[in-house]
Amino acid sequence: MTLHKDVMLDFARDARTGLDEAVLCASKSVAHLATILDQVKERGRRILLTRLLAEQYELLPQAHRAAIDYEPLSRTGVFGGTHELKTEVQVALVSAGTSDVAVAREAARTLRFYGEAAVEIHDVGVAGLWRLLERIEEIRKHRVVIAVAGMDAALPTVIGGLVSGVVIGVPTSVGYGVASGGHTALNAMLASCSSGLVVTNIDNGFGAACAALRILRSQ
Amino acid sequence: MTLHKDVMLDFARDARTGLDEAVLCASKSVAHLATILDQVKERGRRILLTRLLAEQYELLPQAHRAAIDYEPLSRTGVFGGTHELKTEVQVALVSAGTSDVAVAREAARTLRFYGEAAVEIHDVGVAGLWRLLERIEEIRKHRVVIAVAGMDAALPTVIGGLVSGVVIGVPTSVGYGVASGGHTALNAMLASCSSGLVVTNIDNGFGAACAALRILRSQ
Amino acid sequence: MTLHKDVMLDFARDARTGLDEAVLCASKSVAHLATILDQVKERGRRILLTRLLAEQYELLPQAHRAAIDYEPLSRTGVFGGTHELKTEVQVALVSAGTSDVAVAREAARTLRFYGEAAVEIHDVGVAGLWRLLERIEEIRKHRVVIAVAGMDAALPTVIGGLVSGVVIGVPTSVGYGVASGGHTALNAMLASCSSGLVVTNIDNGFGAACAALRILRSQ
Amino acid sequence: MTLHKDVMLDFARDARTGLDEAVLCASKSVAHLATILDQVKERGRRILLTRLLAEQYELLPQAHRAAIDYEPLSRTGVFGGTHELKTEVQVALVSAGTSDVAVAREAARTLRFYGEAAVEIHDVGVAGLWRLLERIEEIRKHRVVIAVAGMDAALPTVIGGLVSGVVIGVPTSVGYGVASGGHTALNAMLASCSSGLVVTNIDNGFGAACAALRILRSQ
Amino acid sequence: MTLHKDVMLDFARDARTGLDEAVLCASKSVAHLATILDQVKERGRRILLTRLLAEQYELLPQAHRAAIDYEPLSRTGVFGGTHELKTEVQVALVSAGTSDVAVAREAARTLRFYGEAAVEIHDVGVAGLWRLLERIEEIRKHRVVIAVAGMDAALPTVIGGLVSGVVIGVPTSVGYGVASGGHTALNAMLASCSSGLVVTNIDNGFGAACAALRILRSQ
Amino acid sequence: MTLHKDVMLDFARDARTGLDEAVLCASKSVAHLATILDQVKERGRRILLTRLLAEQYELLPQAHRAAIDYEPLSRTGVFGGTHELKTEVQVALVSAGTSDVAVAREAARTLRFYGEAAVEIHDVGVAGLWRLLERIEEIRKHRVVIAVAGMDAALPTVIGGLVSGVVIGVPTSVGYGVASGGHTALNAMLASCSSGLVVTNIDNGFGAACAALRILRSQ
Amino acid sequence: MTLHKDVMLDFARDARTGLDEAVLCASKSVAHLATILDQVKERGRRILLTRLLAEQYELLPQAHRAAIDYEPLSRTGVFGGTHELKTEVQVALVSAGTSDVAVAREAARTLRFYGEAAVEIHDVGVAGLWRLLERIEEIRKHRVVIAVAGMDAALPTVIGGLVSGVVIGVPTSVGYGVASGGHTALNAMLASCSSGLVVTNIDNGFGAACAALRILRSQ
Amino acid sequence: MTLHKDVMLDFARDARTGLDEAVLCASKSVAHLATILDQVKERGRRILLTRLLAEQYELLPQAHRAAIDYEPLSRTGVFGGTHELKTEVQVALVSAGTSDVAVAREAARTLRFYGEAAVEIHDVGVAGLWRLLERIEEIRKHRVVIAVAGMDAALPTVIGGLVSGVVIGVPTSVGYGVASGGHTALNAMLASCSSGLVVTNIDNGFGAACAALRILRSQ
Repeated sequence: MTLHKDVMLDFARDARTGLDEAVLCASKSVAHLATILDQVKERGRRILLTRLLAEQYELLPQAHRAAIDYEPLSRTGVFGGTHELKTEVQVALVSAGTSDVAVAREAARTLRFYGEAAVEIHDVGVAGLWRLLERIEEIRKHRVVIAVAGMDAALPTVIGGLVSGVVIGVPTSVGYGVASGGHTALNAMLASCSSGLVVTNIDNGFGAACAALRILRSQ
Repeated sequence: MTLHKDVMLDFARDARTGLDEAVLCASKSVAHLATILDQVKERGRRILLTRLLAEQYELLPQAHRAAIDYEPLSRTGVFGGTHELKTEVQVALVSAGTSDVAVAREAARTLRFYGEAAVEIHDVGVAGLWRLLERIEEIRKHRVVIAVAGMDAALPTVIGGLVSGVVIGVPTSVGYGVASGGHTALNAMLASCSSGLVVTNIDNGFGAACAALRILRSQ
Repeated sequence: MTLHKDVMLDFARDARTGLDEAVLCASKSVAHLATILDQVKERGRRILLTRLLAEQYELLPQAHRAAIDYEPLSRTGVFGGTHELKTEVQVALVSAGTSDVAVAREAARTLRFYGEAAVEIHDVGVAGLWRLLERIEEIRKHRVVIAVAGMDAALPTVIGGLVSGVVIGVPTSVGYGVASGGHTALNAMLASCSSGLVVTNIDNGFGAACAALRILRSQ
Repeated sequence: MTLHKDVMLDFARDARTGLDEAVLCASKSVAHLATILDQVKERGRRILLTRLLAEQYELLPQAHRAAIDYEPLSRTGVFGGTHELKTEVQVALVSAGTSDVAVAREAARTLRFYGEAAVEIHDVGVAGLWRLLERIEEIRKHRVVIAVAGMDAALPTVIGGLVSGVVIGVPTSVGYGVASGGHTALNAMLASCSSGLVVTNIDNGFGAACAALRILRSQ
Repeated sequence: MTLHKDVMLDFARDARTGLDEAVLCASKSVAHLATILDQVKERGRRILLTRLLAEQYELLPQAHRAAIDYEPLSRTGVFGGTHELKTEVQVALVSAGTSDVAVAREAARTLRFYGEAAVEIHDVGVAGLWRLLERIEEIRKHRVVIAVAGMDAALPTVIGGLVSGVVIGVPTSVGYGVASGGHTALNAMLASCSSGLVVTNIDNGFGAACAALRILRSQ
Repeated sequence: MTLHKDVMLDFARDARTGLDEAVLCASKSVAHLATILDQVKERGRRILLTRLLAEQYELLPQAHRAAIDYEPLSRTGVFGGTHELKTEVQVALVSAGTSDVAVAREAARTLRFYGEAAVEIHDVGVAGLWRLLERIEEIRKHRVVIAVAGMDAALPTVIGGLVSGVVIGVPTSVGYGVASGGHTALNAMLASCSSGLVVTNIDNGFGAACAALRILRSQ
Repeated sequence: MTLHKDVMLDFARDARTGLDEAVLCASKSVAHLATILDQVKERGRRILLTRLLAEQYELLPQAHRAAIDYEPLSRTGVFGGTHELKTEVQVALVSAGTSDVAVAREAARTLRFYGEAAVEIHDVGVAGLWRLLERIEEIRKHRVVIAVAGMDAALPTVIGGLVSGVVIGVPTSVGYGVASGGHTALNAMLASCSSGLVVTNIDNGFGAACAALRILRSQ
Repeated sequence: MTLHKDVMLDFARDARTGLDEAVLCASKSVAHLATILDQVKERGRRILLTRLLAEQYELLPQAHRAAIDYEPLSRTGVFGGTHELKTEVQVALVSAGTSDVAVAREAARTLRFYGEAAVEIHDVGVAGLWRLLERIEEIRKHRVVIAVAGMDAALPTVIGGLVSGVVIGVPTSVGYGVASGGHTALNAMLASCSSGLVVTNIDNGFGAACAALRILRSQ
């Protein structure tokens, strides 16, 4: 009862911005999450769940749990099914190290939810430059490159100097000492000398995917 | 002599990224700046100068000074002329307050250098929300919105929820106390609950314009 | 014995400031909390318990536990009963997202303890501006608006420009990356361009309620 | 011409929030400031200028300069005259040290612009507690206390425990080492154990006065 | 074997500085702690253990555990017995709130280990100033006052203005939001306008006690 | 007239804390400084002026300027003469480098104002350890050692392990990069593994001297 | 299947930099770690595992676990055996306290993996300077000194002034309050007045060992 | 007279560390600098002056000024002549942009003072990767590479993955917004995924050169 008054989903968002609302789950109580899914179900809508922790997922009502396509590495869930997949692949998802894959996959799952495919190229950090150079022609072919990296986050800078498409940098919280938390990766991307690199919040694969969607749809 | 060895302009950048190199002037000695312009002139190229301080401009050799179209508010200079102007206006430059105009103008001058026009809409910060709402239909018509704001920087978040195009937030260093330096504006944009907002470094109107150029050319 | 000497409740505070002392529980040992409740009971007083963690509550002596009205989302407990409820509703509690409700409820429970009612309006963050605009006339009718928001915390700025009453901003620690911890929300509120917005510590719903009480009683 | 398009004063703000717009001058060019004053004059309005630096004031057109009542310590200017003074004094302005007077005076000048008088009590920092205790009964009589302090900023906490009215803390950038910039004063006020203390940005005497005005008018 | 080479206790410290070495336990492995106690026992010495976590204590060999006088609130252990207690009480331990008692007790236990008694006065934070003023004459009688406080940490500043003895401020990590971690308390003490206040690291009751010992012995 | 109401010197401080008030000049207007000196002169008192900038000193009324014993390196002024000098030298002032002498001299001048002599030993930073070891026996003879150091500030830690007296660390803002501002020096002193080291604010030679005075007088 | 595409080991690194790739395990999923070891095994290579948490190690497939030489204090594992040990000992590993041994051991294990021996000297922090001075002649004999210290991290500065070899400082996250996290130790090393001290990330014993290897092999 | 006691040059440093003392000038008074040069001259020694500001140099006594070889870009001065130049070039000095040349030149001048030559390669930042790749074979030939970069500082990471020699990263304070001050460059280097990269303080070309000297002489 009360819980319903704590939630007011923005079902009009799609009409205004072209993107359905998504739900950031980590900071919400399970009771609030269940209420949200109740409302989505009542309306016959679909919704993307981000940062849905395994322990939250486990505690959801069984009916809701069964209706969610849950992927634990990226901690994403799809409720009500994804949008239809487009055939053209216009986004390249590139990550610096295996530790960054979880964030890259959040972006991939978000793109897929809204019907966009992406090619994924992982573990091509610039400390072993040849790995990136071997794949750069493939990367260049995409309109949007989402470059995911933690620690010193030099990857998007190097890519930005090698391709003419849009490069969106996603810093990750991977690392320790001065790297931990991702602030160094974030700042290194913001201070990049590659012209026109744009950046999202730390670990925000979802946001990078949404930016890519805005770009692809803005023609 | 020695100075020439300190400078290696990247005349190949255009071929790879579609954008000529630009020169960030503030941290360079006047002697180095003059050397750079010598090299550009020898090659018969054009170049955009950003953060060219008035006191640097005054100390340049007279011949170089005469060849620069200098605009003091944005501290930008164009050496060798701009690229041809395209007719379609696809970028809206929106700023929150008059103090933010200098940064917005750096973006406008950068777009103009590369041949893109932009509409400018200033002083529409959300503390007086009606000013923005009166212009929002006009803003919506553009493929890319560059939203420039300092202090609490709520403007890009509100715009992001009202338009479907790409929104690039540019935080400015306007303000005092916790705002000074622009870090609060930057973080507020990065932490925005508007999906798909992307961000540049503080006061980086140049970078936002380059991102817009990458978007417009990536079709 | 020793424990009693570690505690000196300020039973005179009410006379000086009009507000009974409240107890911030999270950083206290359960033994100290029990001692505090012993003293309150001996004096026949009532007391508000804030940040009373579920695990602390569970470990309190059964008699004390039974005497507490505990609400887990806001982590507040009322010991000895609330003050009599006034009929006029002069405070609007507005929050940006469902994740902010816990903090807003701490404010609601504090107001209720001291006898003030409040209307609660949740999930009206400015990324979906129409949700706020639909409720703004209702919000305007209250002398005090407590605006609770995390992440970029643009809500109090927008409200501050739309109402003439007092607006108290409460930043929350909701979010991740640059948002986590609530410092960005706090700084964005402090740097707000809405004139006369005042702010409390992060997650301090209790403090905002106390400020509202001082305002309502200061006529 | 262009300058006029950079400025869009919010002449409707008064109707919505009860307070005219004010202009934060420090980050604006003199040309922009002159344009703003042109617009105000054309409309026959009055306006408060805050953080108007002496060197900006000196460079304004003579006609504008003559029309401004400028006070250099607080760096405030009144253009077009103040509102009529009310007789009742409901605000006490209290500061910790002589170095804090400039900020307190910005608050006093703002209150006076909007027609409210205030009593000023200076140099009563708590390192010499007796100075405050001698004046505390006088301070208690006011509905709103604006407490201005830098360095460790203990003054608002102590006052908050001694009066029942509203206490608005204004941290100042006075001090050096860990104090410089005012962040310690700000954080100490936010973390105050005095219930219901609310806080503004560093050095924001203007904002504290606006909050006081909202409080006084919200009955 | 190897473990013994990882440890080189400074049994000569007493001769040089008048204070035996103490062991900070929290960051050491239990195996290393056991090795340290082996060495102390072999030499027939005594040692103070600080920040000995309950879970570390439980895992120590039974013989060592039996030889330790362990106090869980302050997380201190005494191995080999305390020094003889002096009769004169020259130190007052004053804390702002019940949450600060744990740190104050670390100081008390340290003083006791080295043979000094101290009077403890708790819960006299300046938000309820009368509690402190009632005890101030008692506090004034001591050569050294150790003032322990978290959050805004105004207590040492107020005491410093009321007594002529040495005041050592110990900031605590009590609080949340901007207070959490104790950095605000630390900075507020360092920026205090009370002349001659000296400060230790956050939560460092041990260090404050050692400073008091140096003062008492330096005559 | 107004200026006199902005100033309320604490002439009672001496009676309570044993130390006259001193005036921190840097953040005060020259008019306020002159008013302060007027009041001191009227009362026939003496006062210590700290952080009196050369440009402030030059602008003071000639009569006041003539009455001040001004020392530019430490930026201290004595108005009304110093207290009588005691014969016993109980304080050693030790600094790490020539750049730290200015802060050490502020301490020396403060001690001298209140009648205490001090031996000064400069340029003995631990990067050239033998310089310190040659002087350590001399340093050991003093009841209080004030150790002044910037950059990595290892000096007080090393001294603290070699003497039994009180060691007061004063971090300085000397250095560049991570050192600039003195925060690294401050934190290194606070985190020192030398037991019982106490610390003042950055560059606060005055505060260290006042602490020494409290120690010397507290017997 | 998918997992294999998330991993692209850099088997060519050895040829370019002289050092095999190592794997930072803490931020990787166990499934990804197992995939990495599968690829190493298939190629018949060896690999060093750093920051391999005990709980990760326990969850690895039994065959992999059996093939790893795991050392829990340093959290390092060697898979596929170490390189042949050289006879000459050219590196001294010196640490300030027993709490720093874990990081020093990571360096020792890394050196050993690549075939270099090192002498380890622990618990010689400068608060008890004589412990270091007794060993300094032994330390001087090595070409490279790796100095590991937390808290105030004065050890590398003092060593740097006493030896002519290369000194690599490794800050550790040991300590609490201002020390915790290791940032103070890091900054103190970077700001050291010992000429030519170089530094690695916090707790990065692996990196210091790799730097030593580069030095030893660069002749 | 007094000035001489403020200075104690470490003429023994050479014997212990192989490097003469150098003088960091920026934070010293001109009088102190002159005193230092007096002492050096009396002893017939030579000395390197770093961060000697042009305005300091101008104010030195004429005799000293004439004896200094001053280079304004790097702000270095050599007093008493350099050491004899060795023939073998073992150090490569590589910088990312023309703005970084000043810091690189400080390193070059320091190396030259001590008799080492270096090859300088400038303006090869990784945003235009081909510039670096064209020179990488030349860079590889040197035992030590000093890589100087500001902003995102990706250069040393990329070089570290391409050469087997020692790589010393020197972050510079070049840039604005999140880059300004050099902290992002510093942290990016420390968090680098290139194994064995070591780092100095921001803008510390002198320190990097000294580290190189220790490496070259440690055989």
